[in-house]
Amino acid sequence: MDSSGPSCGQQISSSVLPRPLIYLIVQEAEQFAKSHFERIGDPSHDWPHVQRVRDLAFWLRGARSLNDQNEPTLRCDYLVLELAALFHDLVDPKLLPPDAVRSQAEPRDLARAVLGPFWDDSKQGHAWMLDVEQKDRIIEIIINIGWSKDQKRRKQAHVVYDELYKEGVYCWPEFRAISDADRLDAIGAVGVMRCAAYSGVSGRQLLSSVACVDSAVDHIHSKLLLIWGDRLFMNKAKVEAERRQETMRTFLHHLDWDARTAQ
Amino acid sequence: MDSSGPSCGQQISSSVLPRPLIYLIVQEAEQFAKSHFERIGDPSHDWPHVQRVRDLAFWLRGARSLNDQNEPTLRCDYLVLELAALFHDLVDPKLLPPDAVRSQAEPRDLARAVLGPFWDDSKQGHAWMLDVEQKDRIIEIIINIGWSKDQKRRKQAHVVYDELYKEGVYCWPEFRAISDADRLDAIGAVGVMRCAAYSGVSGRQLLSSVACVDSAVDHIHSKLLLIWGDRLFMNKAKVEAERRQETMRTFLHHLDWDARTAQ
Repeated sequence: MDSSGPSCGQQISSSVLPRPLIYLIVQEAEQFAKSHFERIGDPSHDWPHVQRVRDLAFWLRGARSLNDQNEPTLRCDYLVLELAALFHDLVDPKLLPPDAVRSQAEPRDLARAVLGPFWDDSKQGHAWMLDVEQKDRIIEIIINIGWSKDQKRRKQAHVVYDELYKEGVYCWPEFRAISDADRLDAIGAVGVMRCAAYSGVSGRQLLSSVACVDSAVDHIHSKLLLIWGDRLFMNKAKVEAERRQETMRTFLHHLDWDARTAQ
Repeated sequence: MDSSGPSCGQQISSSVLPRPLIYLIVQEAEQFAKSHFERIGDPSHDWPHVQRVRDLAFWLRGARSLNDQNEPTLRCDYLVLELAALFHDLVDPKLLPPDAVRSQAEPRDLARAVLGPFWDDSKQGHAWMLDVEQKDRIIEIIINIGWSKDQKRRKQAHVVYDELYKEGVYCWPEFRAISDADRLDAIGAVGVMRCAAYSGVSGRQLLSSVACVDSAVDHIHSKLLLIWGDRLFMNKAKVEAERRQETMRTFLHHLDWDARTAQ
């Protein structure tokens, strides 16, 4: 399932921009994403989450260990990786005003409309220097990331995961690293905190009860505990997910104990 | 520190109402509290939290083990215990409209205004049958519960906890059971979930960072990890708090591990 497999033929060219310009573009992207999340004020989907996903994506791609043969890094465009990581939650419909979502028929159009101000305006900065291929790849990555899209594809395809993800965006190392990073940040201790915080944002109950069909604990059972194995692309992510799943299982055990103390 | 100590002389008379009437009053109180929390929609301070606090308060008072000599139950008015547990969060200023809080100068007046519709209107139900002493005790209990009030009293008194809590409402078994139950529900796995959910409600960041002085993790360190020992009245609560503190310490360890994965 790792992107180093022979079936993943489509490669992406590394950025040819000089390094100081790349730094400037990344700084501009950070400000662009940061201001988006400051307007939303949802601590379960916020700037610190984006920073963690970016860090995890780089860690998964082995950016600090170029000699690691198991996780090849040379085929990865780190500028696309970094920008797509920074922007991965910008087109999530639940984090956008309903009007903005309704005004665009297709996710691709919505992503273009949201990211347009970042790279179309040459007066604002240096992001216009990104080439068309890089912009398209960033858009493809951020519109294809997400659990519900994955669920939908699996249902439509009626094929096993390995077959479904042999080509296209799902094969790109940048997509694989960001998707895995985003899922790792949804599980473990951080995942529990984020899940509970989203309950606070959305008014969802925390613990399950007979009367309530939707709660944070239900969400942990119906989604978060499934994030392991073939829900991740990279071996490094799968190993890390095992550790985080164990944290969640232990936590649920204690939660059950707390809830039954007085019974 | 248990309410069975010889320094706690003030006792409360048990309710003299027939049992079927007590059940009716409790049912009315449940509806009254439930409708309050449905209006608020905060999963960190909600009806399930109130139910847990009620159950824990009864459990702490040993209502199911009347032969337990270490936690005497006979001195406790269970109707006052139950109603004060159900109402303990109804006068929390952060869960009331600002106008309602501003319109009443004193916490006691605010509590009378909030609870008035429950027991003053004989047409609505049976709660008017509560005697004046029971109503006053319920009000005294709910206006004196809370971490910030405890902190304030400790600072004002400049005395050790044992001395400060030797008389008045702090000595009542009903107050002690509800205060301990409320604190137990603030720690452990449930406490972590509630703390994160409140971050969602209030827009507070989850994990600590250099730039952020207020986060859910800061709150765990500055308040929740202190809920043990003399912050609780009853021995049974102290033992249970130890278990829940261990859960939180383990969770924080995993949280730290998650946050440092990519570093």
